[in-house]
Amino acid sequence: MKIVVIGGVAAGMSAASKAKRNNSKNEVEVYTQEEYISYAACGIPYFVEDLIKDSGHLVARTIEQFAKQGIKIFTGHTVTQIIPEEKKIKVLDREQNKIWVDYDKLIIATGASAVVPPLEGLNLKNIFTVKSITDAEKIKKKLQEENFKKAVIVGAGYIGLEMVEALSSWELDVTLVELAPQIIGNIDADMAQLVENYLISNGIKVRKEEKVLGFKGIETVQFVKTDKGEIETDLVILAIGVKPNSELAKEAGIQLGVKNAIKVNNRMETNITDIYAAGDCATAYHLVYKDEAYIPLGTTANKQGRVAGDNASGGNSEFPGIVGTAIMKVMEMEIGRTGLSEREAKMLNKEVQEFKIEAPAKAHFYPGARNATVKILVDNKSHVIVGAQIVGGAQAAKRIDVLATAVQTGMTVNDVAKLDLSYAPPFSPVWDPVLVAANVAAGKLNNN
Amino acid sequence: MKIVVIGGVAAGMSAASKAKRNNSKNEVEVYTQEEYISYAACGIPYFVEDLIKDSGHLVARTIEQFAKQGIKIFTGHTVTQIIPEEKKIKVLDREQNKIWVDYDKLIIATGASAVVPPLEGLNLKNIFTVKSITDAEKIKKKLQEENFKKAVIVGAGYIGLEMVEALSSWELDVTLVELAPQIIGNIDADMAQLVENYLISNGIKVRKEEKVLGFKGIETVQFVKTDKGEIETDLVILAIGVKPNSELAKEAGIQLGVKNAIKVNNRMETNITDIYAAGDCATAYHLVYKDEAYIPLGTTANKQGRVAGDNASGGNSEFPGIVGTAIMKVMEMEIGRTGLSEREAKMLNKEVQEFKIEAPAKAHFYPGARNATVKILVDNKSHVIVGAQIVGGAQAAKRIDVLATAVQTGMTVNDVAKLDLSYAPPFSPVWDPVLVAANVAAGKLNNN
Repeated sequence: MKIVVIGGVAAGMSAASKAKRNNSKNEVEVYTQEEYISYAACGIPYFVEDLIKDSGHLVARTIEQFAKQGIKIFTGHTVTQIIPEEKKIKVLDREQNKIWVDYDKLIIATGASAVVPPLEGLNLKNIFTVKSITDAEKIKKKLQEENFKKAVIVGAGYIGLEMVEALSSWELDVTLVELAPQIIGNIDADMAQLVENYLISNGIKVRKEEKVLGFKGIETVQFVKTDKGEIETDLVILAIGVKPNSELAKEAGIQLGVKNAIKVNNRMETNITDIYAAGDCATAYHLVYKDEAYIPLGTTANKQGRVAGDNASGGNSEFPGIVGTAIMKVMEMEIGRTGLSEREAKMLNKEVQEFKIEAPAKAHFYPGARNATVKILVDNKSHVIVGAQIVGGAQAAKRIDVLATAVQTGMTVNDVAKLDLSYAPPFSPVWDPVLVAANVAAGKLNNN
Repeated sequence: MKIVVIGGVAAGMSAASKAKRNNSKNEVEVYTQEEYISYAACGIPYFVEDLIKDSGHLVARTIEQFAKQGIKIFTGHTVTQIIPEEKKIKVLDREQNKIWVDYDKLIIATGASAVVPPLEGLNLKNIFTVKSITDAEKIKKKLQEENFKKAVIVGAGYIGLEMVEALSSWELDVTLVELAPQIIGNIDADMAQLVENYLISNGIKVRKEEKVLGFKGIETVQFVKTDKGEIETDLVILAIGVKPNSELAKEAGIQLGVKNAIKVNNRMETNITDIYAAGDCATAYHLVYKDEAYIPLGTTANKQGRVAGDNASGGNSEFPGIVGTAIMKVMEMEIGRTGLSEREAKMLNKEVQEFKIEAPAKAHFYPGARNATVKILVDNKSHVIVGAQIVGGAQAAKRIDVLATAVQTGMTVNDVAKLDLSYAPPFSPVWDPVLVAANVAAGKLNNN
């Protein structure tokens, strides 16, 4: 059996590995237009920050390691067409020669691309996206070679904030420009405000409800033009968002779903037999939405890739679904979220009550103790926790995992309030902030 | 209604506070033989280490703050007798005057004491236990004033290991002596060995299966005598274990349970009407044992105290029980555990399978990433996770909370393998070590 994978990052390489492990007689080929494979895209901001010196460290396994396993990888190869009826794909090799590749099973793991609106002045130098290692290498080279003073980051999502940390570490004067009335769109405005306050207190300029119209400069970018004025800059990072690379699939008659991501079931099957999709190009079943969602993240890509690789090679796996758990750090501020935000609850017509508490993330007397704000959203009738967010200092955010477990398994505030969570002064106050939040919610709900 | 509390630390002050909050008309009096109240006993090793300069910082709330709330606290008062038939207690005040105090409801929160076997030479100077702030102040004063070079810690449980960190930070040559064949008795031998290796690599001398027979010296301790020889030392810390302070209760006819702790139900009621017990002097219901246990910890004390205070003042609470979750740190090594250890599984005649994995606690490329070893014990038939242990570097151990949640709610390895846990390079590899452990277990169990 010949299994062909399009894309060589998280989902693609997870799929290829699993397919080969299932049966070493399987022919497994991977086609990717990139030069790097099997790299941790989420590590890119830390490479720009220079916490990671060598981009090679982001690579989990090399082409040679995969080759030893018997997986053939074709980098610099662009797949231009899928012909499901003939079970083959058209590929352009490095020399732009057309080649045809047959498959028994095809796995599409083409990932996502940075959204780049057609803005005036986009062709000026020193305007970058941060989707690939190649992007990151260009940015870092500039930071090392040029004497940049100012940077503008367009978009205040996770990547935008991670780039705030990265560029601040190079001692640039950083301005964050966001179209929406709040930063970090997937947490609630009150929680995002805590992060914004922190950024401002650390010298970051935050400009919200401001629309970028274009860029000005001679050869290199010098000004970002917005609907509110001009911002002088030496460097622009576009971190507006990502979109699934699903055109190839669409042209082959593969059905797309939410946000134009490739529609898959829990076995990662598309609507066309023997064609699977996984990772940032595909939808994922959301266990709280009880519907498909498009939330591209590294964890999901790895898990979906493994499921696709298993099923394509005769195994039988199901992707268990997501609850929208995510975590990030910007400088010394941590942010975790899971389940529904207020906005998502409203979208689903769920009636929820909110409870928010502040408590130290370590014992109050332990050095470096800083507060964590924990917010939980509770279903009005069942008292099940349907969403949670944590914002705070060191060791605050990974606590979201207990709440993610609660959301995924349908635990009520009473259930969580009863948990025997760990305590020692370097790790937690005697009442863990998660327990405080659940206890406050339980106290109020039980008295009503 | 008059509620009298014996003991002024975690359980006692939680009980007193809750009783007063329930109804401000309640008379609430606290009698304690100590001078300090409402302090974090778990913080004591960090005070000795001098991470916390002032013992006052360990105090959560002062006598004056409680007084404002209307709670009367009598420090330096020793309760010598409980007479349930007359609903009164006999107290010796500071001047050793006998006074009688009536109660409507009595809450016993007398805590635990360090176990001190009747060893030869115990009266020598510089031999200490570390149970109270007063103990800790004496030790720290000595460390500041004397030029100690060597210390012996007897007992390699949590307190013993925390004192290893504390005394190492004073640059003492530390020897840890343990009677048992392994350190940290409440985790499995293979996991304890990882910690032992770490200690040894950090210059700590670890002597196992060695019985301390007594102490030698002129005025001050100079040698620890064991069944294997003599160890030269300037300072001895006895951290052999603790025993519940339950004599007062026993003499009053109150029933004791496991390990002579005061037997309580989930409402914290003893066998005598209107007498409650909570915290380190009392038993706790263990949700995996499905039986009472004696595992004195700060979290349990706070929770039980609140329940006792609530029920004593007309409320209606139940202590939800424990699963034996605990966490600690020694230098840069973290240890977490929950549910059953191998030994406990054997004791309960539970047939379990063990799965152990090693994975980085942060992304492998992120600075400071160190490995976490995760071990889970899985019920042979149901595949429910009945116990888990984590040993590793920074950010490893607090992950035990997800596994504690799993143990407490009866999740199988498949359930845990499906969790949507958080990922970002500063916090986790893309497959969280908890997921790796569950996936490995699920893979092996599902194929059988």
